Amino acid sequence: MKKIVFIRHGESIWNMKNLFTGWTDVDLSDKGIAEAKQAGIILQKNNFSFDIAYTSFLKRAIKTLHNVLETMDLLWIPEYKTWVLNERHYGGLQGLNKAETAAKYGDAQVQIWRRSYDVEPPKLKAEAAKVQANDPKYKDLAPALLPTTENLKETVARVVPFWQETIVPQLKADKKIIIAAHGNSLRALVKYIDQVSDEEIVKLNIPTGVPLVYEFDDDLKPLKHYYLEQ
Amino acid sequence: MKKIVFIRHGESIWNMKNLFTGWTDVDLSDKGIAEAKQAGIILQKNNFSFDIAYTSFLKRAIKTLHNVLETMDLLWIPEYKTWVLNERHYGGLQGLNKAETAAKYGDAQVQIWRRSYDVEPPKLKAEAAKVQANDPKYKDLAPALLPTTENLKETVARVVPFWQETIVPQLKADKKIIIAAHGNSLRALVKYIDQVSDEEIVKLNIPTGVPLVYEFDDDLKPLKHYYLEQ
Repeated sequence: MKKIVFIRHGESIWNMKNLFTGWTDVDLSDKGIAEAKQAGIILQKNNFSFDIAYTSFLKRAIKTLHNVLETMDLLWIPEYKTWVLNERHYGGLQGLNKAETAAKYGDAQVQIWRRSYDVEPPKLKAEAAKVQANDPKYKDLAPALLPTTENLKETVARVVPFWQETIVPQLKADKKIIIAAHGNSLRALVKYIDQVSDEEIVKLNIPTGVPLVYEFDDDLKPLKHYYLEQ
Repeated sequence: MKKIVFIRHGESIWNMKNLFTGWTDVDLSDKGIAEAKQAGIILQKNNFSFDIAYTSFLKRAIKTLHNVLETMDLLWIPEYKTWVLNERHYGGLQGLNKAETAAKYGDAQVQIWRRSYDVEPPKLKAEAAKVQANDPKYKDLAPALLPTTENLKETVARVVPFWQETIVPQLKADKKIIIAAHGNSLRALVKYIDQVSDEEIVKLNIPTGVPLVYEFDDDLKPLKHYYLEQ
């Protein structure tokens, strides 16, 4: 039986402030760090261990991973970071307050941006797009691949090849894997693994800092999944 | 002009307690974490940045690296961990108090173990060697490669091929590299780069938590080196 553990990063300082975050590289809050450590304790209590770790280019996911691994005394395992596991890009909404945005555009429009599968929020404005293109994180990425907004469908389109090309071979080799990522990059994985419909996936909420375990048979057919809660 | 930065981990809890450490995987002290953050600040003030990071399997070096990178907002860069950068193995002395060991074996003997180039300390005892062989960190390492004690000469013998095979190609490709490691694995690198004699290298002391910069010409001839101090 093969297993993988997903973990959504703990609370960030923009979750606290109720801002749209997306690719903005904001830090964990103290509560977020505590959530990550708690996840490490729960994983250890349940006799989990890992051979290899994957995370995004964003520090809230990287620091979640580091706090989990440190708690489990696994800081030494190989760790790979990729932009492909980044949060869904939130375009021009990044940095805006969620309540103010609802007041300006109406609740219905904000709900469409947040919860539709294939509608993109407005693109990053030109100045912000330039700043992003000059971010050293993305300098080796072909400009055509660098999003300035995304719907969940587009997030799925970048996450699924990573699953197929990078994670599946490791699972087949019986590697014990942890992926520390984001609400929407994890939704994208869950959609692909469990063949969740476009309508259903946007309703799925993965809680922050709670390990989500997926079990597979030898042909990588998903058998079950569950959260490891305290 | 090509550059690389070496950093010896900050103070560990066994440095504080005056114990021989070697491969024992002890944590940083609070002072050690502060030293690492300070190193990140100094590097940033001097306009350093990095494309890639290397460290050992030991958490005092890994956490030093993470604290440096977090301070510099570079947590996202690729990071590779290898047992080859571990501290010199201190054999049966690991875990013993330095003062008590001197009282038992005499100062002269302890000085030979600590400061000779090619005399090994006593090997790990059988029980401790078994614990080490079962450590998941080293389970993929051929038993013949897993030391139970080392002199500095043996540390040099494992570090130099890593330099030649892994670091040199990255320097030639103009990658900006940081290596977070240990007193003796860094001594081994310095000995090789600067062709320091066996007698001189054992006297060289690399301070904890202070970035050590090496500059090279295009043929990787070392031009100069200096510490970045506050």
